[in-house]
Amino acid sequence: MHLINGKSASTLSVTDRGLLYGQSVFETIAVFKQKPLLLDQHLDRLERGCRVLSIELSRSKLYDEIEFACANDNVPEPLRVARVTVTAGIGGRGYMNPVMATTSRIISMFDYPDLPVRNWNKGIILGVVDIRLSCQPVLAGIKHSNRLEQVIARSQWLPGWNEALMLNQDNQVIEGTHSNVFIVNHGVIQTPDLSQCGIAGVMRDQILETANSIGVSTEIVPLSLTDVIAADEVFTSNSIVGLWPVRKFQTQRYSNFKISHKILNELRNNGVVPTF
Amino acid sequence: MHLINGKSASTLSVTDRGLLYGQSVFETIAVFKQKPLLLDQHLDRLERGCRVLSIELSRSKLYDEIEFACANDNVPEPLRVARVTVTAGIGGRGYMNPVMATTSRIISMFDYPDLPVRNWNKGIILGVVDIRLSCQPVLAGIKHSNRLEQVIARSQWLPGWNEALMLNQDNQVIEGTHSNVFIVNHGVIQTPDLSQCGIAGVMRDQILETANSIGVSTEIVPLSLTDVIAADEVFTSNSIVGLWPVRKFQTQRYSNFKISHKILNELRNNGVVPTF
Repeated sequence: MHLINGKSASTLSVTDRGLLYGQSVFETIAVFKQKPLLLDQHLDRLERGCRVLSIELSRSKLYDEIEFACANDNVPEPLRVARVTVTAGIGGRGYMNPVMATTSRIISMFDYPDLPVRNWNKGIILGVVDIRLSCQPVLAGIKHSNRLEQVIARSQWLPGWNEALMLNQDNQVIEGTHSNVFIVNHGVIQTPDLSQCGIAGVMRDQILETANSIGVSTEIVPLSLTDVIAADEVFTSNSIVGLWPVRKFQTQRYSNFKISHKILNELRNNGVVPTF
Repeated sequence: MHLINGKSASTLSVTDRGLLYGQSVFETIAVFKQKPLLLDQHLDRLERGCRVLSIELSRSKLYDEIEFACANDNVPEPLRVARVTVTAGIGGRGYMNPVMATTSRIISMFDYPDLPVRNWNKGIILGVVDIRLSCQPVLAGIKHSNRLEQVIARSQWLPGWNEALMLNQDNQVIEGTHSNVFIVNHGVIQTPDLSQCGIAGVMRDQILETANSIGVSTEIVPLSLTDVIAADEVFTSNSIVGLWPVRKFQTQRYSNFKISHKILNELRNNGVVPTF
C-alpha cells in the first residue's frame, strides 16, 4: 500500500526533485498492531531535515496520513514497517528550489523483516566496510535520501555479517550501515558524536534517555576500532529492530550482554520497540 | 516529453531506488537541431557511474532511446536539453542491491535555458558559496544524483550571480555549482583535480583537449581563491552553455578574455557547443 499526498497511488513524476537530486528526507517506522511507534520523534527528525533541505511540510497532514495508512493497512500481521518520504516535489530542471513549493508526502507499508530471534538474544556478527563516510556538517544527523555511501557499504558486507561498521576518513567509528553503534566501557555507555557525519537515530535518543533513567551513564566520545574490540559490550540500534547486542566483531567475541539486555528490556517495557 | 525504458511515460514507481536512495546517475545534454551533442562522451561518463553504483546498463538501448527522443521531440526550437537519468530500478526496501537488476532509463526533453548573450561575450559574475564539498573519492568525478550539496549551494547564491564557486573543506576551489572552473595563469590553463570531490565535466575534457590541440598548455593544480583573484582570465564550463568567461569575482574585475574566447570559438567550430 502506498499513499501520496493522502491519495492511494504508487508512482511519482519523473521531474520530482526527490528523484532528480535526492532532495528528500525519510523515516522508517516500526508499526505494531497498526500503531506507528515513536511517531512524534520520527516527525521531529523529519521536520529538522525538511528545514535543512528547504522542503515545506505540513506536519499535521503527514501525521494524519501516517495514522490512516497504518490503520488501513490490510495485511494481517501485527508487525509492519512504514516508510515515510517527503520530497521537495516537482520543480524545473536545475538545482534552484522551485518558487512554488510542491512537497510530495509518500507513505509505503512494507513487511516487517523476517529476522532470527537470536539476533536479540545471543547477539549479532558485526563487520566493518571499506568505504568511509564523508564529512558534511550541514547534512549530518538528518535522514536525507542521499544514501549512496550506505548503498555501497551494504554491497561490501561479507557473508554472515548482520551489520557492519562505517568509519569516517580519520578512521573513527561513526555508525553501522543502518544502525547507530554503542559500546559499554566499565559500565558507561559510549556512542560517537554525529555532528560531522552519520544519522542521528530516533532509537539512539531513546537508548540514551532510557540508560539515564535507570542510572546507567552515557557519553558521546570519539570511538576507534580498538575501543570497539576492547569494549565490555557492543550493541547497535535502529527503529525497526530496537537493539541488537554484538556477539562477534572480527576475531573478538563478546559474551557479556548485561547492560545491552537491560536497555532492550526497558525499551520493550516502554513499548517503543516491538516484542515478539 | 518523457521516455521511460523506451516507452512514453512520465511517472516512476515510488519504490524505485533512484527515489529511495538517489541510486542513479544522470547527464544533461545540449541538443542542437535534434542531435544530442557529445553523446558518446556523455554515455562514457554515465557508464563509469553505473559501474560505481552497481547499475546494469544497456548502452546501445539507451543510445537508441536518446536519439529517438531527440528526433521525435515536437518542439520547434533548434536548441533543446535532454536529461538522461539511469536508476538502479525497483528493489526491496533496504540498502542492499536487488538480486534482479531492474534499471530505469529515463529521458526528458526540456527547454534550452533563456540566457543573455553577454554571458558568453562579456563574461559572467561569479560568487562563492558557504557550503563545502565533502571528500568522497569513491563517488568523485561521476555524475550521480546525490546532489544535496549543489541544491544547498544554489540556495546560497546572492542576487546578480551567474555562477558560484564551491570549495572543499581545505578551502581549495573545486568547481562551480553547475560547472567546472578554470583560470589562465601566464598563458597556461589551470583547473582543479577532481579525484576527491567534484564532477568531471564532459565539457571540461573537451576544453583540455581543445587547448592542447591549439598549443595552449593545461595543468591540473590545487587552486585557492587567491589564485582565482590573481588570474589573468577565469572561465567556467558545462555541457549546456559550453564556456562562460568571468568578468567579475568579488571585487576583482577581469577584462582579458583572449584565451577564453579562443577556446570558445574552437569549441563552436568543432560543433560541440551550440552557436547562437
